[in-house]
Amino acid sequence: MTAAAPRHTVDPVALTVDLIRCPSVTPVEGGALVLLAQVLTEAGFTCTRVDRGETSNLFARWGTKGANKSLGFNGHTDVVPTGDATLWRFDPFSATLAEGRLWGRGACDMKSGVAAFVAAACDFVRETPPDGAVILTITGDEEGDATDGTVALLDWMAQEGEQMSHCLVGEPTCPEVMGEMIKIGRRGSMTVTLTATGKQGHAAYPHRAKNPLPALVALLDQLARHQLDEGNENFDASTLALTTIDTGNPASNVIPASSRAVLNIRFNDLHSGESLSQWVRAQADAVAAETGIAFDLQIKISGESFVTEPGRFTDLVAGAVQAETGRTPVLSTSGGTSDARFVKSHCPVVEVGLVGDSMHQTDENVRVDHVHQLKAIYSRILADYFADNSA
Amino acid sequence: MTAAAPRHTVDPVALTVDLIRCPSVTPVEGGALVLLAQVLTEAGFTCTRVDRGETSNLFARWGTKGANKSLGFNGHTDVVPTGDATLWRFDPFSATLAEGRLWGRGACDMKSGVAAFVAAACDFVRETPPDGAVILTITGDEEGDATDGTVALLDWMAQEGEQMSHCLVGEPTCPEVMGEMIKIGRRGSMTVTLTATGKQGHAAYPHRAKNPLPALVALLDQLARHQLDEGNENFDASTLALTTIDTGNPASNVIPASSRAVLNIRFNDLHSGESLSQWVRAQADAVAAETGIAFDLQIKISGESFVTEPGRFTDLVAGAVQAETGRTPVLSTSGGTSDARFVKSHCPVVEVGLVGDSMHQTDENVRVDHVHQLKAIYSRILADYFADNSA
Repeated sequence: MTAAAPRHTVDPVALTVDLIRCPSVTPVEGGALVLLAQVLTEAGFTCTRVDRGETSNLFARWGTKGANKSLGFNGHTDVVPTGDATLWRFDPFSATLAEGRLWGRGACDMKSGVAAFVAAACDFVRETPPDGAVILTITGDEEGDATDGTVALLDWMAQEGEQMSHCLVGEPTCPEVMGEMIKIGRRGSMTVTLTATGKQGHAAYPHRAKNPLPALVALLDQLARHQLDEGNENFDASTLALTTIDTGNPASNVIPASSRAVLNIRFNDLHSGESLSQWVRAQADAVAAETGIAFDLQIKISGESFVTEPGRFTDLVAGAVQAETGRTPVLSTSGGTSDARFVKSHCPVVEVGLVGDSMHQTDENVRVDHVHQLKAIYSRILADYFADNSA
Repeated sequence: MTAAAPRHTVDPVALTVDLIRCPSVTPVEGGALVLLAQVLTEAGFTCTRVDRGETSNLFARWGTKGANKSLGFNGHTDVVPTGDATLWRFDPFSATLAEGRLWGRGACDMKSGVAAFVAAACDFVRETPPDGAVILTITGDEEGDATDGTVALLDWMAQEGEQMSHCLVGEPTCPEVMGEMIKIGRRGSMTVTLTATGKQGHAAYPHRAKNPLPALVALLDQLARHQLDEGNENFDASTLALTTIDTGNPASNVIPASSRAVLNIRFNDLHSGESLSQWVRAQADAVAAETGIAFDLQIKISGESFVTEPGRFTDLVAGAVQAETGRTPVLSTSGGTSDARFVKSHCPVVEVGLVGDSMHQTDENVRVDHVHQLKAIYSRILADYFADNSA
């Protein structure tokens, strides 16, 4: 007589399929969090909906509140819009399996990641109940403004005395090959909207007008040429990208009154949002003094840089990835922002997930074997984390 | 018994009123040229409509074709749109007299100028028939593309063997004070549309994209900083005005694929459209070589610079202005283009007209006494021109 399969094993691929079929385009919940709460409750988690504003969020804990060791997972079930759905090979909410892949919006970013850690966590607490707590924070707004998503969950946890000792974010982290990269931090991100204002006039009489464009291009040229830094041990070099310049003047014989430019800075821990704001303002003030053109600056700091210093926790995560994939992951701080920028103020945070090459695209998809592999990585991390009595 | 007023004197103000009431927004004839043909025919002019495409044009000659001396006048009856007519003090086509001014679209640019030279020419040929010819070329498209306006009239004249010895254009020429300026030439004008193309990408991964904006602002900064010349005896310095930069990228986390900029150059006779085209292309090629960003250039040369060298004809015109206004006019080449750019290839041309401060604006108007003064200037030029047997 052969051994029966564990009765309650959660299949991460089946769960991803069910999640993709919930059309949870930000900020719509779409049934995704309701489904997860059901699965988690069956496994013994205590689930609480922490909705704020338009956003739906789910908090789930197995084990006692205030446990000494508490491993957290963070993720999101909202997805970006499909764009023109007729351009997709398969209906983006059909979750079609083909060619060893699962196709659909959110297949990669990040319903599969959520399904993998939910499956790993459910199996783990059923099979080897740990001495500690497992906490899941899952939001319905990571792709949007993210003001009432993970932030709301962390606010609520602080108020309720809920605490994670360490946290994993399940976003895709590998550029091309499974297991090649985990993220131990992120650069900060800020967006500066510059409006240059002069005085409109006829292009034939420039001395009677004050053209804002020469001053604007002089400033932008200075900003774009400046090398912010060369990076350091944990971070790539900071980057500044001009993203748009818009004047909207249809008349080639008219000097415009104003023009607007936007730039995006991704910065490492050699800077802060405040230090860079001061730098941009000083550059703008200098050009304004030279040209007489006024600059208005609107600065939005989306997140400061942070890093979880390499050590026992990052070793544990990297070791699990190595054991399951055979690859030693690079500890990276590259790439765009994620909700790790919020979690980092609560506890040390590491991101580990799938290959992200199809995220946000038409025909978004994930390899089925990678989803199983990711569940295995999370399962191993759970086991090692609670086995390591010194952590 | 007092002397009766000359029976056939044409009142330039009454004629301007009648012209303004013809709603001749480019390219609509609006009855304006029909009215002028009637007035001129009554005075003994032979009138020919020289319409081409959508444009209506009027050619009128008094005297014999091929006369040794033939003084021409050029003007236009089309007007720019009113904009929001409810913002006007008076209906823009009502030609209302108030506060010593005549109000309406075209009052300044340039129905009053046309009325003044038509009135002067009619009175002159009736009262002192000259030994020579008086030729009027009046177009219904100066404010639009101007491809079928004065150009069509000059094409037709060349074909018919019609010739002006000298020509006056009746556009407004005085910035603020009546009599202060006549124009003996114009700078050339060209418009360059630059499109910079790179490769779209995520703002967090600039090395995977090719951002066209740093290359574009570097090029524009170089072009805008460059002093083309310092002017010369006849001309102000050439100017280059950036008029618009447009990218249209709404996403601050996306590096755009391309962006477009437009610049307008007003150039004196130290340059040509061709020499400046070569200069802009060379600058763009250098930045393209340095950055790997491709530039597409669309160049439209609206007109080359020209000058009617100061001499007997300009002295005659300036003398008439001085006699009627008490001011010695500056001989200028400043300002925007006019149809003088076309006439200059046919014969020497000078522009003399009203104060242009309200042209193209809401509440466009002209001082009534200035219209009478302008007719007097044209009358004096006619008399002096045909009295001067050496001209």
